[in-house]
Formats: sequence, C-alpha cells, structure tokens
Amino acid sequence: MSITVVGSVAYDSIETPSGRRERCLGGAATYFALAASFFCDVRVIAVVGEDFGPEQETVFERHHIDTRGIERAAGKSFFWEGSYLENLNEAKTRNTELNVFATFEPKIPEAYRDSEFLFLANIDPVLQRRVREAMPQVKLVAGDTMNYWINDYRPALLEVLKGLDILLINDAETRVLGENQNLVKAAKAVMSMGPRILVAKHGEYGATLFHSQRNGAMGERTFRAPALPLEEVVDPTGAGDSFAGGFFGYLAAQKELTPGVFRRAMFYGSVMGSFAVERFGTERLEQLTRAEIDERFVRFRELTHLD
Amino acid sequence: MSITVVGSVAYDSIETPSGRRERCLGGAATYFALAASFFCDVRVIAVVGEDFGPEQETVFERHHIDTRGIERAAGKSFFWEGSYLENLNEAKTRNTELNVFATFEPKIPEAYRDSEFLFLANIDPVLQRRVREAMPQVKLVAGDTMNYWINDYRPALLEVLKGLDILLINDAETRVLGENQNLVKAAKAVMSMGPRILVAKHGEYGATLFHSQRNGAMGERTFRAPALPLEEVVDPTGAGDSFAGGFFGYLAAQKELTPGVFRRAMFYGSVMGSFAVERFGTERLEQLTRAEIDERFVRFRELTHLD
Repeated sequence: MSITVVGSVAYDSIETPSGRRERCLGGAATYFALAASFFCDVRVIAVVGEDFGPEQETVFERHHIDTRGIERAAGKSFFWEGSYLENLNEAKTRNTELNVFATFEPKIPEAYRDSEFLFLANIDPVLQRRVREAMPQVKLVAGDTMNYWINDYRPALLEVLKGLDILLINDAETRVLGENQNLVKAAKAVMSMGPRILVAKHGEYGATLFHSQRNGAMGERTFRAPALPLEEVVDPTGAGDSFAGGFFGYLAAQKELTPGVFRRAMFYGSVMGSFAVERFGTERLEQLTRAEIDERFVRFRELTHLD
Repeated sequence: MSITVVGSVAYDSIETPSGRRERCLGGAATYFALAASFFCDVRVIAVVGEDFGPEQETVFERHHIDTRGIERAAGKSFFWEGSYLENLNEAKTRNTELNVFATFEPKIPEAYRDSEFLFLANIDPVLQRRVREAMPQVKLVAGDTMNYWINDYRPALLEVLKGLDILLINDAETRVLGENQNLVKAAKAVMSMGPRILVAKHGEYGATLFHSQRNGAMGERTFRAPALPLEEVVDPTGAGDSFAGGFFGYLAAQKELTPGVFRRAMFYGSVMGSFAVERFGTERLEQLTRAEIDERFVRFRELTHLD
C-alpha cells in the first residue's frame, strides 16, 4: 500500500534552548513522509524553489520516497523561522515566507493515482480539497489543519472535513474547531463535521483517539497513547507531523483496519513523535532504524500496560 | 492492613460551571479516607469544630473509617471557599478560614499505632513531620504538599521529604519543587530529596509514576496511567486526594508491593479521581460501590491497552 501526501517541503530556521539551526530541511510533508517511510511507500505532492538542491533530494531518496510530485518552481522554497526559547510546547513564529508556495497548484502525477491512502498535511483548505477531489479512488483520507485556517477560513475548512475519515489536530485546535472547552464535547462536535475519527494530540501527554460510532458509548471506543517522558526535547518542530506519519504509515501497511490496528497505529504515532524531538529538524528521523522504532514501541507498551 | 491519614476535615463552598454548593463536607483527609476505604481500613487524624455534626460523622461511619483520631475543638471547622468558573483545572481560592486548624496539634490514638501505612495529606510540613516521627513503625509513608509550602516553607518541607517513600504532587508543584521546567529532570531532583517514588499528577491527562532506582534507566521504571476523558467535570475538588486514596489504599491492601502492584495502584488512583469529579464535593464517593470501581478499572485498561 502507498500513501500520497500533499503539504509543505520547506526550509526552517529554528531556535530552542538547545541551540539554533539555519535553513534545515523542514515542512509538514517532509516530516510526515520520513516518518511514514518506515512503514510503507510514500509519494509527495509539494512545490520547492530553485534553492532545493541534491542534498535535500537525497534525504527523500534514501527513504525511497517518491518525489515525482514535488514541483520545481522559479523562486525560493517556503521558509519558516521559529523560536521555542520561551515555551518548548509552542513555537513563536518569527518569519514566514511563502515564496513558491504562494502560487502552489498541486499537480498529481499519473503514477500516484493508485494510492489508497491520502494525507492532507496542514495547508490551505482550498488546496486540500482540490487534491482530495482529484483522488476519488483513495480508501482512507486523513488530514491536519491549524488555528489560522480554523479561525479565518472556516467555510473552506468545513468542506475539507466532509471528505476526511480521520483528522489529527492538537487539543487547542480541537477546542477552537469544536467550539467547546471540554475536549470530549469538542471532539464530538468536530466528528459531526465529517471525520469519523479524531486524533487529539496532547503534546508531552500523548494523544487520544476518539471514534464517532456508537453514540453515547464513545468511552469504549476511545484510546489513549502516551508520550515518552523525555529528559531533553531538543526541537519540537515536526513532532505532530511525525506522529501523523507513524500513525498513518502503520495503518497503510496493514491488511485490515481493525480496532487493534488503530491502537497500534496510535502507539507508532507517539513513537515517531518522540524520536522527532530528540534532535534538530529531521536529523533524528533521517538516522532512524526500524529496529529502534520497534524497541521504543516495546518501551511505550511497558510505560502503559499493567502486565 | 490499615492506613493512618493526617490532614484536613473541612467544610467547602464551591462554585463551578455546573452550579454551587455551600458548606459541603470536604478536606484532603476526607477525600483520601473515603477513596481508600474501598480497599482497606482507614484511620483519620484531624481536628474539627463544634459545627461538625452527626450528619458528617455518619459519612465516615458508613465507610467504616476510624474517627477516634478526629479531635473536637472549641470553635469552627476549617473552611475553604473556591471557584472554578474561570478554569476547571485550577481552583481560585476566595476565602480560607483555618479556624480550629490554626492551633491543630495532631494526637495519635494508641489504637492507630499498629498502622503499617501512613499518609501525610497536604498540611503544614511541621505537623507532617511530627506525625511521621510519632509513628516510626510504619512500613510505607506517602505524602502530598502544595506550592504554598514549597515556596515559603521549603526547609521544613525538605525535612518531611527525607522521611517519605512516596510523594504525590501535580506537575506544576513538581517543577517548582524540583526547580526545573522539564518534568523528568524535576522528578529526579525531587526524588533526590528523599522519596524514592514520585507520582506526578497531570489532571485530565492522568499521572506518571517515576522511580528513582537504577540511575539513568528511569524510563524503564516509569509508568503512566491515563485519566478518563470526561464529558462533564462537575467539581474538580478533591480529585488529587481521591487519586492518592485509591493509589495508597490499593497498595495497603496487597500482600506484596511488586512493580505490578504499583502499576495497578496508579490505575486505581486514576479511577477514584475520575469518580470524585463527577459530582459536587464527596457526593460521588459517598455513593460509590466496589463493583463500579472494578468496572471502571476495566474501562481504563481498554482505554490504554493494545490487546
């Protein structure tokens, strides 16, 4: 099985209490693709500028990620600069340059059209919807968004939500989108907008999967995966996208999507998120092995299981 | 086995988005004792005023809680008034009247002296230490504290910590006491002060047990219990004390304190905390049955376990 992901491939300049990195490879689609690549084939739809060189290309190649959908446009790649000096849990954006992303028109290579899994990373909901509609054959669609789109582009976002099976967002976004301070009530409201599954990410406290089937008995369908208590978070950038990549990548690699498979997917999501924050940018994901992933999966089980 | 608990037995006036209650039975020792009473014998050391009547007495009696250590003093009982209107996760204190608690001198009934478990609820560390020293026979001592004592009575508190096996506090208290924003590092610092186990409570995200043995490999010893995602938190008062009661009560009822027993204790703590917040004050704990507790334990397992 393969996943097609549409989203940003970018350069990030990041400052955290552990240090600073200039123009490292970043973007939601990059983190997602790297994390998912340990589980299944991944195909990327994005746009980059003339500054995107062989070094960056190699990162994708080494993980056998299909980059035929990454368009090269005249100009510079999307650039983001952020700081976690004040709060490791929330980036403070210092600068965003859309560059080639400002006029991005996603083009889907013919070779991608048999993908059964589609991930709509956090981009303009108008683009998310266009890609969704251009790939009617997919059997499972997941997506992400952020407060910027929730607050200012709600009608367009609501259209996207109608076409989603799974939405992965954080607690604050869930509360704003669901217009309720109570996370469970907000989750229900969000699921009434389309996605039958909502994965609410709690940062250092893990994530909860809410399922909309069987009204009134959601507790039985709810599943909570922990995060690993870490002594050092070097760089939180991409943790959520890496979670999504581990979660959706694991799902795409399974024969059947049983409740047990979704539970394991939550664990693999948490596992990939916990690796992503150990070093700057994509450094840790680039050097990761499947053996390390499985080892940490066992550790997550020990962290939460009674026996 | 039996637990002796020293702490406050009080009246609380509470306002939450769900409503308001005037002068309901409260106090850390009350919540702790009620929660623990479902697992083992509980003996209370506290002081109440002349306003403490047969109705309140009956609550303890119905749960077979030994109240011979509850002293009746001239004057009024400890009184606390708080609001959760702004934030359900943090009480805003409107009024505190120490009353008979201002001159409280804990007296330990002779009949309590064979207790093997001692819980020092959140009171003046000088009193905590006095009770600890008066009961040298106990085999396991756990305790609680709050930012007030951590900030302004640190030397006295540090003396208490030396005599504790287990400290149960929330994340914010852990960070302040351990003087580190990173929870894992703060937990290590706190354990270096005495307690070999720290239970850090995360509110709606559950709780983590940190264990100080085997330096550098704490991850393997760490255990995380979830909280139940609740659609309605009626009144958060006493959630932490109920957690402590479930946790320590379950421990006191076991023949051996194995790692597996501690894991189960964390679950029972979370279970009792989740019940406490469902109604105002002690209402839910007063009406609880052991069958309901075991049923929710199973639900917590389903919420977190892969199989």
